[in-house]
Amino acid sequence: MKIGIVGITGAVGQELLELMKERKFSYSEIRLFASNKSIGKKIKFKSKLYKIIRLNKKNLEGLDLVFFVAGSTVSKKFATIASNNGSYVIDNSSAFRLNKNIPLIIPEINSNTLLSSNSKIIANPNCTTIISLMGIKPLLNLQKIKRVVATSFQSVSGAGNNGMNELLENTKRFFNNKKSLNKVFNKNITFNVIPKIGSFKLNGYTEEEMKFNNESRKILDDKNILLSATTVRVPVLRSHSISLNIEFKGNIEINKIKKEIIKFPGIDLIDNPKKNQFPTPIDSSNRDNCIIGRIRKDYSKRNCISAWIVGDQIRKGAALNAIQIAELLVRK
Amino acid sequence: MKIGIVGITGAVGQELLELMKERKFSYSEIRLFASNKSIGKKIKFKSKLYKIIRLNKKNLEGLDLVFFVAGSTVSKKFATIASNNGSYVIDNSSAFRLNKNIPLIIPEINSNTLLSSNSKIIANPNCTTIISLMGIKPLLNLQKIKRVVATSFQSVSGAGNNGMNELLENTKRFFNNKKSLNKVFNKNITFNVIPKIGSFKLNGYTEEEMKFNNESRKILDDKNILLSATTVRVPVLRSHSISLNIEFKGNIEINKIKKEIIKFPGIDLIDNPKKNQFPTPIDSSNRDNCIIGRIRKDYSKRNCISAWIVGDQIRKGAALNAIQIAELLVRK
Repeated sequence: MKIGIVGITGAVGQELLELMKERKFSYSEIRLFASNKSIGKKIKFKSKLYKIIRLNKKNLEGLDLVFFVAGSTVSKKFATIASNNGSYVIDNSSAFRLNKNIPLIIPEINSNTLLSSNSKIIANPNCTTIISLMGIKPLLNLQKIKRVVATSFQSVSGAGNNGMNELLENTKRFFNNKKSLNKVFNKNITFNVIPKIGSFKLNGYTEEEMKFNNESRKILDDKNILLSATTVRVPVLRSHSISLNIEFKGNIEINKIKKEIIKFPGIDLIDNPKKNQFPTPIDSSNRDNCIIGRIRKDYSKRNCISAWIVGDQIRKGAALNAIQIAELLVRK
Repeated sequence: MKIGIVGITGAVGQELLELMKERKFSYSEIRLFASNKSIGKKIKFKSKLYKIIRLNKKNLEGLDLVFFVAGSTVSKKFATIASNNGSYVIDNSSAFRLNKNIPLIIPEINSNTLLSSNSKIIANPNCTTIISLMGIKPLLNLQKIKRVVATSFQSVSGAGNNGMNELLENTKRFFNNKKSLNKVFNKNITFNVIPKIGSFKLNGYTEEEMKFNNESRKILDDKNILLSATTVRVPVLRSHSISLNIEFKGNIEINKIKKEIIKFPGIDLIDNPKKNQFPTPIDSSNRDNCIIGRIRKDYSKRNCISAWIVGDQIRKGAALNAIQIAELLVRK
């Protein structure tokens, strides 16, 4: 299998290589692409040096599978070129996610959609959507969901290496009594939280908030489920947390939810108030599985629960989910 | 007016002095109390030095008003002694908040409750409750509320100077590759968030979450309103943020909400998606007024909105509200 990675210098690109090693993902050739300023630079992978090459039609030829992790603009321009070449494309950007001919896949949740599709392009969902649905999907085995109200605590890795660097640099500047330099984020992210991710839509929600609604409904294949979010950037390096309030169509028992979570792949339960156990984003950092906890009946409404889920944004929120899709394609 | 402050070395005690100066709060005598280890230390206030004295029955005698900002244990032991002496007590702890004979006051919201009460003890509400209700109360002038679902982003100042120091120290330790020392908080608060404030109750909610429900219902004098919260500690120094989802009994218009907010004392509106304007906790730090923004119709449910409110935890969340209560008492 000949593999390409477009956007290799980014946080998700680097994590893809790490995961290919960890998961012994087999390949016969690997081509690494990045933006013009990185061309010619060398990247070490499994004790071999690879030169970063230019992203163009010719260099994409002959590949079986290309990961696009360089953002929407690059995906829109080159993903179709790659798929027209006959390559499978796993696209981490939002470019094709809502295209009805393109499967939007979380392998634990809707692998069948991928297996029954002829599309050469497969879209990797938004990070907050993936992590939230890893907690929501097991519950759907028990009861239908009417509505989800979510508030996210999103790590700076969602804005890539630059986001992580800005948090670290501005924090150092704080201790040196220097003003923050806010380039990646609109406002200072050090010792602050920013309740806006992506640009504002006409309805007052942000792009990120609408992705959560639109992508979740597509992945769950449910046009009746309603999801409303407030998405917030927090000074956390690489794990997202989501506070969920979920209203079901009928009764649901907390102990049954917990059993269902334990059975479900890719998610762990850390939820024992008596032992003071609950998950924080650091607990899920550099970890494949998401973690859910603080599951409790909401006393304020019938058939309603609250819960708290965390997951590594670079892993399950991006690179791991992409690799899992690739593994599904290999089986297919 | 002879004034006492119990807990003068704490963050709220220090802010009380600052606010007395700022607001030209008049007094004829001032006595400063703290725990045993601080007795004899001197505190400068308006260019005069005050010695910290021991908290006992005798030293509390003859005061007209005593602020208790040293926590529940101290309040339970000494607030009644002070009030039996004939002093008014403004208590910042949770000790008396739900006692039905003791008014629980946010001056902009329920000053009448104070004016019509004979109680010598007045309770200052929980910080998250105060800041949330500063955003919620103006809306009640337009429409009844059925239910509020809240997720808080609470600053470390909620745990006092020790909380702020732990965040700063652990952040420095992070940059020096040292393990975090977690004494005030259960877990590392640097580059992390902790979805648990106060101990767990039997229903799976935390103390802080139940305070939000119980205190709000008392302050709003509404036994039908329902409030469900997830309260989360975040690495922010001194301002809380709350993501609110509010369901009304009938229709409500966003432009009318904004007008009502602008009219209401103690809260500002920063809400202009077109100009990319919304509040973050740093914007409300060291500031009297709370700020609300991101007000939008929730498309997922009729008669429902989402909003985001921030407020300085040490000011409006504690010391400012206490001083405002004192000012009300003076007028009374």
